[in-house]
Amino acid sequence: MTRDLTTRNDLKEIVDKYDTILFDCDGVIWEGDLLIPHVKEVLAGLRKMGKRFFFVTNNATKSREANKAKFDKLGIECHVDDIFSSAYASAAYLKNVLNFPAEKKVYVIGEKGIEDELDSVGIRHSGGTDPADNVFIDLMDFSSITSDPEVGAVLCGLDMHLNYKKIAKGCRYLRENEGCHFVATNLDSTFPTHGSTVCGGATIAPLITTMGRQPLVIGKPEAAMLESILKTYDLDKSKILMVGDRLNTDILFGVNGGISTMLVLTGINTRAEAEAEDAVAKPTYIVDSLGDFISVV
Amino acid sequence: MTRDLTTRNDLKEIVDKYDTILFDCDGVIWEGDLLIPHVKEVLAGLRKMGKRFFFVTNNATKSREANKAKFDKLGIECHVDDIFSSAYASAAYLKNVLNFPAEKKVYVIGEKGIEDELDSVGIRHSGGTDPADNVFIDLMDFSSITSDPEVGAVLCGLDMHLNYKKIAKGCRYLRENEGCHFVATNLDSTFPTHGSTVCGGATIAPLITTMGRQPLVIGKPEAAMLESILKTYDLDKSKILMVGDRLNTDILFGVNGGISTMLVLTGINTRAEAEAEDAVAKPTYIVDSLGDFISVV
Repeated sequence: MTRDLTTRNDLKEIVDKYDTILFDCDGVIWEGDLLIPHVKEVLAGLRKMGKRFFFVTNNATKSREANKAKFDKLGIECHVDDIFSSAYASAAYLKNVLNFPAEKKVYVIGEKGIEDELDSVGIRHSGGTDPADNVFIDLMDFSSITSDPEVGAVLCGLDMHLNYKKIAKGCRYLRENEGCHFVATNLDSTFPTHGSTVCGGATIAPLITTMGRQPLVIGKPEAAMLESILKTYDLDKSKILMVGDRLNTDILFGVNGGISTMLVLTGINTRAEAEAEDAVAKPTYIVDSLGDFISVV
Repeated sequence: MTRDLTTRNDLKEIVDKYDTILFDCDGVIWEGDLLIPHVKEVLAGLRKMGKRFFFVTNNATKSREANKAKFDKLGIECHVDDIFSSAYASAAYLKNVLNFPAEKKVYVIGEKGIEDELDSVGIRHSGGTDPADNVFIDLMDFSSITSDPEVGAVLCGLDMHLNYKKIAKGCRYLRENEGCHFVATNLDSTFPTHGSTVCGGATIAPLITTMGRQPLVIGKPEAAMLESILKTYDLDKSKILMVGDRLNTDILFGVNGGISTMLVLTGINTRAEAEAEDAVAKPTYIVDSLGDFISVV
């Protein structure tokens, strides 16, 4: 049963109960470039109480450094280690969960954010923003789609430079290289903002169709991102709360990972959607806004 | 029950029974650039008997004129009207079956073959090989993904110049323009030749994923291509035979369309695969090679 948090006592109880808070950002902390009222003060107050934060985002186009810049600009305290983007989580998952071998490399279908995070964990990579792979090849000229036995994983995220060469190379490695991992940062089909424009799920679709095989998905709502966090830090699941505005990503992510969840109503989903019988996931708590916690911090 | 054609009498019976023969080409008439033995003579003999031919191909990258060039090179008599490529069939379907309005245009995600065939039936188009749409856009710069209320259909085929801009424009038209048709020339995921390289089904996958909607598919094994042929010519279904080497495209195409089918064993599928209990489609007849008909022509 979902519980509504309305009184000061309700909110106080939550603050006392959880040590670690995972936040979705868009629709929770900000809306585009605008902070949601009181959220800045609430985050500062929770920090002062010693709460540990993780900002959990499916955006794989930016590195954690680049993600941090937005927090800096809005005047919210944030450390690089607080950010768990699907790009970083994918790199960390390859490194820590799959024990990716040092002599292998990852073929990237995606933007610089993914390359930066592979660099940050010391995994070699090809493809991505390499100018040699960001070209159009001539019709029926497959001469540049060559083998590379060093590729041990194909990692895909939103790639606004997607092209036939990258798709065909990725498929070739997956087909030819034994045990080659097929990993997606996230499968979101459209951006929550930007007028529902095409997102990462679309740019990985050609590989899924060609290979007839599903990738291991790291981003929300899959459990891999949480697994990656739990593997990196030593945390007590019963003291972790996931806060988000979307049932089908944020709340489902928490449910899949076996942690408590709180839906805020400052973003995509409404109270009615959360309470609907066929809701894709039921939050543990609902609160109008993260800003409501101003009364207890 | 599938019937094996082995004796001269068996073959004679087929020749007498059917007026119109639909041929798949690769694996039936030729294998890459090599003619399958005796096939050239068989085709010439069947022509002399007054049989009508249609060469039915899912290849949408070439116009019928360009397809005909291969027949010319191999010395096989072939007229432009004998060729039913998925590109031409798509243009004909839009024109004759969907009565596509003259004031609208088609947005093409595909190669020149599709544009040529739209031209041949007098349908206006945009996208395709237009240099303005064959570019990479900057990360998160959606400024060029603008509306176009004139687009009444998005037609997709293999596009070796696939890019984010085309995908996003196609999705925008499908979302914004009421009644906008979503049409695919074919959904083959890999080329039968060229080392299973990525094919048209892969380049339409991003739109299917983003829109959460299936296209109307024209090419084999869908019935639309046959519908397009039947609508253009006045043919008696009981006198049409489809000849092919693949169960999941050619034979299934005939079965879906309610015509007789003949599997040849000079291409992809084997006799055992055709006779397997879970075969995707059962041919009416099996013959070792189209060349076997040399004894009756």
